[in-house]
Amino acid sequence: MNGTASVTGTAATEADTFLSKAAGILTDYVASRDDRAALVTRLAAPEELYRCFDQLGTSLRLGDNENPVTSEQLLAAMQVALNFSTRTCHPLFFNQLYGGPEPVGIAGEWLAVATNTNAHTYEVAPVFTLAEIEVLAKMARVVGGAYAQTHDGLFVPGGSIANLYGMHLARNRADPEFKRRGAVGGPCLVAFTSAHAHYSYMKAATMTGLGSDNLIVVPCAANGSMFPAALEAAIVAAKERGGIPFFVGSTAGTTVLGAFDPLPAISEICERHKLWHHVDGTWGAAVLLSRTHRDLMAGCERSDSLSWNPHKMMGLPLQCSVFLTQHEGILKRTNASGASYLFQPDKLHSELDLGDKTIQCGRRPDAFKLWFAWKAYGDGGYESRLDHAMSLARYLEEKILQDGHAFVLVHPRSYTNVCFYWIPPSMRPFCLERATESEKQELGNVAPRLKSHMQAVGDAMIGFQPLGSWPNFFRIVFASAWTLQVKDLDLLLKRMDDYGTQLYSE
Amino acid sequence: MNGTASVTGTAATEADTFLSKAAGILTDYVASRDDRAALVTRLAAPEELYRCFDQLGTSLRLGDNENPVTSEQLLAAMQVALNFSTRTCHPLFFNQLYGGPEPVGIAGEWLAVATNTNAHTYEVAPVFTLAEIEVLAKMARVVGGAYAQTHDGLFVPGGSIANLYGMHLARNRADPEFKRRGAVGGPCLVAFTSAHAHYSYMKAATMTGLGSDNLIVVPCAANGSMFPAALEAAIVAAKERGGIPFFVGSTAGTTVLGAFDPLPAISEICERHKLWHHVDGTWGAAVLLSRTHRDLMAGCERSDSLSWNPHKMMGLPLQCSVFLTQHEGILKRTNASGASYLFQPDKLHSELDLGDKTIQCGRRPDAFKLWFAWKAYGDGGYESRLDHAMSLARYLEEKILQDGHAFVLVHPRSYTNVCFYWIPPSMRPFCLERATESEKQELGNVAPRLKSHMQAVGDAMIGFQPLGSWPNFFRIVFASAWTLQVKDLDLLLKRMDDYGTQLYSE
Repeated sequence: MNGTASVTGTAATEADTFLSKAAGILTDYVASRDDRAALVTRLAAPEELYRCFDQLGTSLRLGDNENPVTSEQLLAAMQVALNFSTRTCHPLFFNQLYGGPEPVGIAGEWLAVATNTNAHTYEVAPVFTLAEIEVLAKMARVVGGAYAQTHDGLFVPGGSIANLYGMHLARNRADPEFKRRGAVGGPCLVAFTSAHAHYSYMKAATMTGLGSDNLIVVPCAANGSMFPAALEAAIVAAKERGGIPFFVGSTAGTTVLGAFDPLPAISEICERHKLWHHVDGTWGAAVLLSRTHRDLMAGCERSDSLSWNPHKMMGLPLQCSVFLTQHEGILKRTNASGASYLFQPDKLHSELDLGDKTIQCGRRPDAFKLWFAWKAYGDGGYESRLDHAMSLARYLEEKILQDGHAFVLVHPRSYTNVCFYWIPPSMRPFCLERATESEKQELGNVAPRLKSHMQAVGDAMIGFQPLGSWPNFFRIVFASAWTLQVKDLDLLLKRMDDYGTQLYSE
Repeated sequence: MNGTASVTGTAATEADTFLSKAAGILTDYVASRDDRAALVTRLAAPEELYRCFDQLGTSLRLGDNENPVTSEQLLAAMQVALNFSTRTCHPLFFNQLYGGPEPVGIAGEWLAVATNTNAHTYEVAPVFTLAEIEVLAKMARVVGGAYAQTHDGLFVPGGSIANLYGMHLARNRADPEFKRRGAVGGPCLVAFTSAHAHYSYMKAATMTGLGSDNLIVVPCAANGSMFPAALEAAIVAAKERGGIPFFVGSTAGTTVLGAFDPLPAISEICERHKLWHHVDGTWGAAVLLSRTHRDLMAGCERSDSLSWNPHKMMGLPLQCSVFLTQHEGILKRTNASGASYLFQPDKLHSELDLGDKTIQCGRRPDAFKLWFAWKAYGDGGYESRLDHAMSLARYLEEKILQDGHAFVLVHPRSYTNVCFYWIPPSMRPFCLERATESEKQELGNVAPRLKSHMQAVGDAMIGFQPLGSWPNFFRIVFASAWTLQVKDLDLLLKRMDDYGTQLYSE
């Protein structure tokens, strides 16, 4: 029997042997997640990747007469795919607001994949449906306030879509004819967010027909948090122009600086003007799980809705994104289509079907892995994880502040985002406030150059970006830093300084 | 060391042992996929599920002081979750337009989970980015026509979102000021779809601010395919009312009957009136892979865009949904926000970043498993899979037609959807056309009752629904029927008749 038949399902035993071998490769990969000696990335140019797969006889290109390959070739291709994929599980992957998931989350997700069902009806997903109901109820209690009394919610495909849900529900509340009539002929609705908010608010505005002109961007303090007085002024100005303010999208944990908007002040303004307050807590909401740090989210319980991405700070595989609202039943009232082929009221337990609440049809059972991980860690496990990430961020910030020479802090930290410059020796001492434009421009080239070098050698992967008048700076985020230690950070800064010094002495 | 520590990542070896054991449970589960003796579902009421998990000490409820459980308890919970989850992998699962994925697809998806990265930038997902580019290029060539020359596309979270993309791009083409200005103050755009189209078009219309009033539902023939003359009449009428027609959402493979709209005629109308033609091929597009049956999709290559869900008919785990358009570069032109923290032009290979094309930010690398499976099966493997599903549908339809007594066909089949009634002995011979309203009502109770019984005994799971004037009828769909044989169908119909006869003689 050749390898081809072995994976096509016609020879079950062979296909199962294949899957077992594949699982072995993958569990070995996961087991190596804490290996400091492994490269964070072996970033290859596209040509190199094409060549590697060609050599296996499993070209990345799919030909016009594509022939099956053997299972041995497939296993080899898996290994190459792993070798060249960025190791988000590496302790030194700081590039984005996610990291390597832990084995329990992976197991939960693999189970969902193996059962391959949809979280749309109870009859095809009874366990996953109840897990979703229970996890959402727990999260609502963690939020507290009105959410602990009544709530509604869903697991959705990503934080951007969660923010879209917030704007969508708000609009349907503000304009009950909207669903039927559409926007044309209706009120000119106006939404508000901050200059540091995630771009998904803007995408939601352009997708939903609000228009970017009607999403007012409110200025922020230097730390990235919205000025509430500026918000109120913008609301008043919009009303004077004849607009109908309906929605404020605030942020708890901005993408770059990790800033928390002043939620109580924003809620107060929203209550006074009768606007829907949605909190983008995709990044920051997990801090609710730490008794020490949950004050950062104070006031979130007064919001109308919020987003929370457990795949960011809770060690779970992508995607695991939650939309929560304190308004019970609003999702079904807004989104239900009552499709008679799917949500038949005359089938068993149909009252538990979750699918008609959504803007999707099929929907992955993303709740199960979170339920599973929460059972494994308990509240205490998540609390210590959060506290550990916060303590690493504090350590790194203090270390950079103490240095102030090779490393300069961009701005005091709010959360686990630590933003800083590495300063080439010839530019030291560097003072951002007093820098000329040409010095800023020169500094803006440093992070890309140093990052490229670190990618070439496979060292820590750290994002960079410009922000306002600040040229490109590094951002280290602690998202999934369970096993990271302060000595890792000491060594990392040492190496960065060495790489940079070497690069800038050439 | 207790079980708690074993999965929290503090004791890596223990956590890895846990994952290996979990993988063993899951590969055993997948290996049993063809087991005819297994129950398709052991549908339990919620109370029973709560009780079972309680007994393991892993309550489905998450308490206010949730404590960690042991890894032994977690493994036991996995087993219970599997036992009570609907076996979509069972050859007799016909409930929806998906089924059990094959081992190669599962392996591809498990790999994506293990690496846990995002298909937004090349630097964090180089292999997955190239796989997405290459699979989309292959699919565009399979579609042919203009798509083979130029195309754009994305993997998106489900077919509903794919249809949303179609409407969204069309609207931005029809009203270039839309993104900035929003819908208010712009033209009153009007879209068209058919009475048998999927409800996602309606959800897209209400989400995007078009409004359900501006989505005109065009009548269908009895087989479920749109009347092109009625479409053109509706377009003309909408113009006369002052509307601006901009979009037709047709369907290739309707959800219930599996009907294919007359794509060439619809494209002709769209070209004449300058409307965007989007084809919802989430269910039907896979037929392009069969030389024998691809004529069902003839004309799709003239469309502006189409949806295609490989997770339905191509044996892949959820989600695997593709949006394709012949308009190169349109996704980025419409959706780009150019977020400077993510799509930095000054990082390596940023020209390959796919994320700015999307309405999401994070996005699962759903392309990889399809690339992987295509390598495994080759074009021929997919062709024989499609041909097998079609031959099973033809066999079942003929068998029901030959019977006509206990089993009555609802309407001649277009695709792999076979829609039929089981008739209780007291109602035979039954003629739908001549049935009185009370007879129809009586018949409408039969499918729910018989299905509930079959769920109770764990036999085949078959969807039912009413449609227009037809009361509830059964729908068997062959979505993932690689190992299903005609003798399985013979035995199934025999058992259904036995169950029903027994139920209706009590």
